Amino acid sequence: MIVVMKPGAAAEDIKHVVDLVHEFGLKDHVIYGTDRTVIACVGDKRTVEKDAIENAPMVEKVVPILAPYKMASLEVKREKTKICIGPERFPLGGVKIGVIAGPCAVESREQILTTARAIKAAGGVGLRGGAFKPRTSPYTYQGMGKAGLELLAEARAETGLAIVTEAVAVEQVEVCAEYADVIQIGARNMQHYPLLEAAGKAGKPVLLKRGMSATLEEFLLAAEYIINAGNPNVILCERGIRTFETYVRNTLPLAIIPALRERTHLPIVIDPSHGTGHAHMVPSMSLAAVATGADGVILECHPDPERATSDGAQSITPQTLNELMGRLKRVAEAVDREL
Amino acid sequence: MIVVMKPGAAAEDIKHVVDLVHEFGLKDHVIYGTDRTVIACVGDKRTVEKDAIENAPMVEKVVPILAPYKMASLEVKREKTKICIGPERFPLGGVKIGVIAGPCAVESREQILTTARAIKAAGGVGLRGGAFKPRTSPYTYQGMGKAGLELLAEARAETGLAIVTEAVAVEQVEVCAEYADVIQIGARNMQHYPLLEAAGKAGKPVLLKRGMSATLEEFLLAAEYIINAGNPNVILCERGIRTFETYVRNTLPLAIIPALRERTHLPIVIDPSHGTGHAHMVPSMSLAAVATGADGVILECHPDPERATSDGAQSITPQTLNELMGRLKRVAEAVDREL
Amino acid sequence: MIVVMKPGAAAEDIKHVVDLVHEFGLKDHVIYGTDRTVIACVGDKRTVEKDAIENAPMVEKVVPILAPYKMASLEVKREKTKICIGPERFPLGGVKIGVIAGPCAVESREQILTTARAIKAAGGVGLRGGAFKPRTSPYTYQGMGKAGLELLAEARAETGLAIVTEAVAVEQVEVCAEYADVIQIGARNMQHYPLLEAAGKAGKPVLLKRGMSATLEEFLLAAEYIINAGNPNVILCERGIRTFETYVRNTLPLAIIPALRERTHLPIVIDPSHGTGHAHMVPSMSLAAVATGADGVILECHPDPERATSDGAQSITPQTLNELMGRLKRVAEAVDREL
Amino acid sequence: MIVVMKPGAAAEDIKHVVDLVHEFGLKDHVIYGTDRTVIACVGDKRTVEKDAIENAPMVEKVVPILAPYKMASLEVKREKTKICIGPERFPLGGVKIGVIAGPCAVESREQILTTARAIKAAGGVGLRGGAFKPRTSPYTYQGMGKAGLELLAEARAETGLAIVTEAVAVEQVEVCAEYADVIQIGARNMQHYPLLEAAGKAGKPVLLKRGMSATLEEFLLAAEYIINAGNPNVILCERGIRTFETYVRNTLPLAIIPALRERTHLPIVIDPSHGTGHAHMVPSMSLAAVATGADGVILECHPDPERATSDGAQSITPQTLNELMGRLKRVAEAVDREL
Repeated sequence: MIVVMKPGAAAEDIKHVVDLVHEFGLKDHVIYGTDRTVIACVGDKRTVEKDAIENAPMVEKVVPILAPYKMASLEVKREKTKICIGPERFPLGGVKIGVIAGPCAVESREQILTTARAIKAAGGVGLRGGAFKPRTSPYTYQGMGKAGLELLAEARAETGLAIVTEAVAVEQVEVCAEYADVIQIGARNMQHYPLLEAAGKAGKPVLLKRGMSATLEEFLLAAEYIINAGNPNVILCERGIRTFETYVRNTLPLAIIPALRERTHLPIVIDPSHGTGHAHMVPSMSLAAVATGADGVILECHPDPERATSDGAQSITPQTLNELMGRLKRVAEAVDREL
Repeated sequence: MIVVMKPGAAAEDIKHVVDLVHEFGLKDHVIYGTDRTVIACVGDKRTVEKDAIENAPMVEKVVPILAPYKMASLEVKREKTKICIGPERFPLGGVKIGVIAGPCAVESREQILTTARAIKAAGGVGLRGGAFKPRTSPYTYQGMGKAGLELLAEARAETGLAIVTEAVAVEQVEVCAEYADVIQIGARNMQHYPLLEAAGKAGKPVLLKRGMSATLEEFLLAAEYIINAGNPNVILCERGIRTFETYVRNTLPLAIIPALRERTHLPIVIDPSHGTGHAHMVPSMSLAAVATGADGVILECHPDPERATSDGAQSITPQTLNELMGRLKRVAEAVDREL
Repeated sequence: MIVVMKPGAAAEDIKHVVDLVHEFGLKDHVIYGTDRTVIACVGDKRTVEKDAIENAPMVEKVVPILAPYKMASLEVKREKTKICIGPERFPLGGVKIGVIAGPCAVESREQILTTARAIKAAGGVGLRGGAFKPRTSPYTYQGMGKAGLELLAEARAETGLAIVTEAVAVEQVEVCAEYADVIQIGARNMQHYPLLEAAGKAGKPVLLKRGMSATLEEFLLAAEYIINAGNPNVILCERGIRTFETYVRNTLPLAIIPALRERTHLPIVIDPSHGTGHAHMVPSMSLAAVATGADGVILECHPDPERATSDGAQSITPQTLNELMGRLKRVAEAVDREL
Repeated sequence: MIVVMKPGAAAEDIKHVVDLVHEFGLKDHVIYGTDRTVIACVGDKRTVEKDAIENAPMVEKVVPILAPYKMASLEVKREKTKICIGPERFPLGGVKIGVIAGPCAVESREQILTTARAIKAAGGVGLRGGAFKPRTSPYTYQGMGKAGLELLAEARAETGLAIVTEAVAVEQVEVCAEYADVIQIGARNMQHYPLLEAAGKAGKPVLLKRGMSATLEEFLLAAEYIINAGNPNVILCERGIRTFETYVRNTLPLAIIPALRERTHLPIVIDPSHGTGHAHMVPSMSLAAVATGADGVILECHPDPERATSDGAQSITPQTLNELMGRLKRVAEAVDREL
C-alpha cells in the first residue's frame, strides 16, 4: 500500500499517517519526492482498510499494491487447475475445450431430452438448464423447481453429459448439488456472499459467472470466497459486462482471458449467449473465445427459440450448434487445443 | 411492442411474425413504410418475451413500449406514497426531508450510542448501521450479527431514531424485521429475488438500493417484486452507478430523481457516501440531492473514520454532520421543503 | 511513479528497471516488501512515458503519482481564477452565479433576438448559440456560419449579454474570437489538440466542455493545452458522460465539482441540457448544480423547442427559464452565493 | 419513427403530434393500445429531428426506426466493399487477412526502416506510423511532422508495404494523402466533422477509428460523412471502448464485427494494441479478431518498446510479430480465410 500525501503536507501530517500505519501492524518507508511525500507501507496485511488512512489529514490517495485474493492467485498455485465434471469426468482446464449447451430454463421432458441428445451428438460435454430462474420481472416464468432437476438427471443418465444448473438461493444449493454436477452461481448473485459460502461447502464444482459490472478483482474475490469456504473447484465464467453499447445485450470482453491467465490458475469458460444477447453473434464469438484461449464455452441452445420461455433471442438451435462444433474444432486445433 | 422487420422482408416473413403475435395473445397492426415494415402489437401482456420474436426470420429488432412494472408506476397510483418510519413515525415522502445517518457497521455499544446521540442532536430521523455485512473480501470484517441489532434497538430506545439495517440473506430478514424499522436491501442484492420476496413479506418498510449497474427499469422491477409480494412500503435509494470515472467510487446520477418522479409514486432517498466514496464530497452532494428533489439522504457517519472497520474513507464525522444539517435546512427551504 | 514488480522478480529484473529509471533521469528507491518489490521513482518528470517501463520483464504495473497537468492545478495557483466575460465584464468564478442560455443553433434574426431579450430580462449574463454546428449526421442542419455570428453580435449590442459560441474547426477560431466573448470548445473536440492550441492563442476566454468519456485527468490536460498555448482564461464545463443509462442522453456527474475544486483553480460551469437530454430535467439539475457549488450554468433555451433545428428535446422555453431563475436565486443564496 | 404518448394523453395531445408529423412531411398511423396510444410515422426523412416531437405535451418518448446512415449500409450496397491499398494493391475486405503493423510514432530513419523490413519479412501488408501525434498531454512527444512522412515513403519504396498514417488536423490531410496510402482518422477525431469531410475529398482510402465512446450508429454516421463527401473507400477500425474495466486500457468489443456485418459493406480492421493497452494481450486478441471475422488487424510494433516515445506498453517486438503471424495464419485458415 502506498499513501500519497498532498503537496504541502507538514511533518505532523506525515507522522500521523506513519503512526496509523504502525497501528495497523505495517512498516513504513517514507519517500520525500520533488513534489510529493509518499509513504510505502510494507507487510502482509491484505485486510487492512485502506479507506481508514485516506481520511487522515493531507492524504491525497491510497494506492493498494497487493491483490486482495490469495488462493485464487498464481502466487499460491502456479499450475493450471483441471476440474473434472460429470459422469465422464471431462477435464475442464486441460488441453480439451469443453462445450456446454442447453436451454435457459428446463421447460418439459421432451424439450430437455431432445436438446440433450442433440448436444451429445454434436460433441458437447455438458448440459446447462435452469430449474430455478432468477427473473428480472416478477411476472415472467420462474422455473420448474425440483421437477426440472429430475429431468436434468434423467438427461444425464441417458447421455452422459455433465449437468450444470443454477442455485438462485442458499436453500437450493443442497438440492442442486444432489442432482447436478456443476452448480452455477449467476451473474446477479456473484456478490451474494451467503450463496458463495454455501456453494463453497456443497462438494461439487462451481461455475461462477462474473457480475455484469464486477471488476476483475471483485470476480476473483468472489472465487476466493468459495475456495476459502472449502471448495477449490471454481470455474470462472465471463458472460459480458454492462457498457454504453446497445447493439448487444452485454459487451463481451475477451481480453479478460489473458488477464485472468496472468493472475489465476482457475479454468475459464465464456458465455457468448448472454455475452451478446443475439443468436446470430453466438457462433463467431464462440470461435473468438476459443482462439483467445478459453477452456470452454457455455451456450444457450433451444429446439424452438421463438417459443422459449426465456432468452429466446440469444438461443441457437441444435442444428446451428452442430454446425458450429465443426468450426470450433478447426479453430481449437489452430491454437493447439482439441475438441 | 413494435416489431421492426429487416428491409426485404417477404410477405411470408411478416405473416410468420403476425402468427406469433396472435399466438402470444396480442393483436397486430402492420404498417408498411417507405423502407421498412413495422408490426405494432397491441395488448396488455407485459410478460410476453420479446426475445422470442426477435429470433424469427427477417426480424431486425423488437422495441418494447409498455414499462414492465405496474404497481410501482404512476399509472396505477398517482399520489406520492408517504412511508412513516420509526417510533416517531417520520413521514418519508412528504414535505419534510429525512436525514438518516450512521456507521457502515455496528462495531461496539459506545460507537453506536455516541453516533446515535449525535445524529439525534443534529436533527436526523434515522440511524443506519449494519449488523450483517456483505463484504467484497472474505478476509474483512463481517459484522456483529444479532448482537449488533440489539445495540441498534437500544440506540432507538434512547433516541427515538428509526433503525435502518441491511438483511444480507433471506434467513436474516425475520430477525432484522423484528429489531429494525426499515430493512435495507443492498445494491449487490437488488436482483436477489428470494431476498426481495422475503422483504416483501416482512411487514416493515424496505429501503431498496439501486444495483450499481441496474437500469432504471430493473430498479423499478425490483421494487415491483417487493410490492407484488405484499409490501407497498418501498423506499428507493440511489447510491451511485459504476462508470469509467475513477475520481469517485461510484458516479452519483442525480437526474434519476426527476426521472423516477415521472414514473413512480415511491419516495426517493440519496446515498452520497457510497455515491461518491469520499467524505469530502458528501456535504456538497447532499445539498445537491435535496436541491434536486430527494425526499431524504442516507449518510455514513462515524466518530473515528480513520479506525472504522469499513467505509472509513466515505464516512463523515458527527461534527461534519452537524454543520451539514444547517446547510441542508437552508437548501431545503429554498426548494420549499422542510428539515 | 511507483513500479510494482511481479512476485518472483529476480535481482537482475530489478536492476534492469532501476537502470531504465536512471536513464529517464529519475532517482530510485527500492522497497523490498513481504510479497513484492516496489521501486519508487523520484523526480519532476511528468512527461516520462510510464508505458516504457511497464514493458520491462517482470514488471506487474506502473502507478503514476504526480498529476500530469501543472498550470491548471492548485499546486501552481491556489486562489480561484475569476474570468470576466462580455461587455458587462461578468466575473465567472466569483461569488455570483452566471446563467448563460440560448438556442443550440442560431436559426434566424427573430429567433436569436427574442431569446436574447428573454434571457436578459430573466437575469442571465450570457447568450449561447451555435453558428457552426458539429452534427452527428451529415444530413442534418449545419448552421448559419458567419451570418449567425453577426446576429449574435447584434443581440449583444442590444442586451449586453456575453456571447458564447462554438468553434468547430481551427479556421473558425479567429472569426469566432472576433465576434464572440467566449469561444466554446465542444465535447467532441475536447481532444482535438490543434483546436485547443488555436483557442489558446485566440485572446478570448474559452469554455471547454468535457468529452463525453474523458477522464478528469484528460479534461484538465485539455485545459492545460489551452493554458500552455498562452490563454489562462479557461472555463471548465461538465456536460454529462456516456454510461449505460438510457433514461438520459448523458449522465451528469455533479461530484466532479468538488473533485475539480480539490485540483484546480479554474471556474466550473454545468450544462444540464446536454447533461440530461430532456427539458423536464433541466430545472432540477440546474438547482442541483448551484447547490453543489458550480460557478454557473449553461442552458439550451428556444422560443419554440418543437421546431428547433436541433436539440429541441432538451431546450427549455424562455418562460421556463424565467421561472427557473427565481428558484436558482433562492438556492444560490442558501449556499451563500448570489444570482 | 414511433411516438409513444403518455397514459392519459387526450385527443388534442394526439392531434398536436399528428399535426407536427404532417408538418415534418411524414404520414401518421395512430394506434390505440390498451394502455398507450402510439403514433407510427411513415416517410423517408432520416433527417427529421425526433427531439422536436419529444418536447410536445404528453409525449413519453420517440423511438427511431430507420438507421440514420444510408450509403454505409447494406440497404444501398449488399456486396462487401474491397479496398485495395498500397503499391501492391492488397485487397482489404477480400478473403485475405491484412496485417498492418508499425510503431505509434515515427522516431528515426533506423527505427522505421528496421521495423518495416521486419513487418515485410513476417508477411505484413501495411506499415503504420504517426508523423503527427495527437497527445493527451502538451508535454509529451508530438511527432516528426513531414520528415516522418518522408521516412514512411522511403520504407514503402524499399518494402512495398502500404503506408497508413494519421492526419490530426484538416491542414495535414493533403500532405498525408500525398505521402501515404491510407489516411487514418484517430478515435479522438471520429466526430471532428471538418476532418471527416477533408478526408472524404483526399482521394485516398481512409481508416476510420471508432471513438472510444461512440455508438455503433455514430461510428457508421462518421463513415457516412466521409462517403458523402465523395470517398467510398472507408475502412472501419475498432480500437476498444471506454468502460469501467481497469485491467485493460480499453475494452475490445469483438461482437461489433458480426454487428457491423449485419449493417454495412465496409471492411473491418481490429486494433488489439489500443484495444487492450498491454503487449502481452495483443497476440491472443489478434487471433480472436481473425476468428471473429475481421478483415485485418493493425498492431503497434516497435524494435525497442521500453524506449518508445509513446505507447511502449502496448507495442510488441518484431520477433513477437513474426511468431504471431504463423499462429494468425493457422486461425485464418480454420475460418476459411487466408494470410
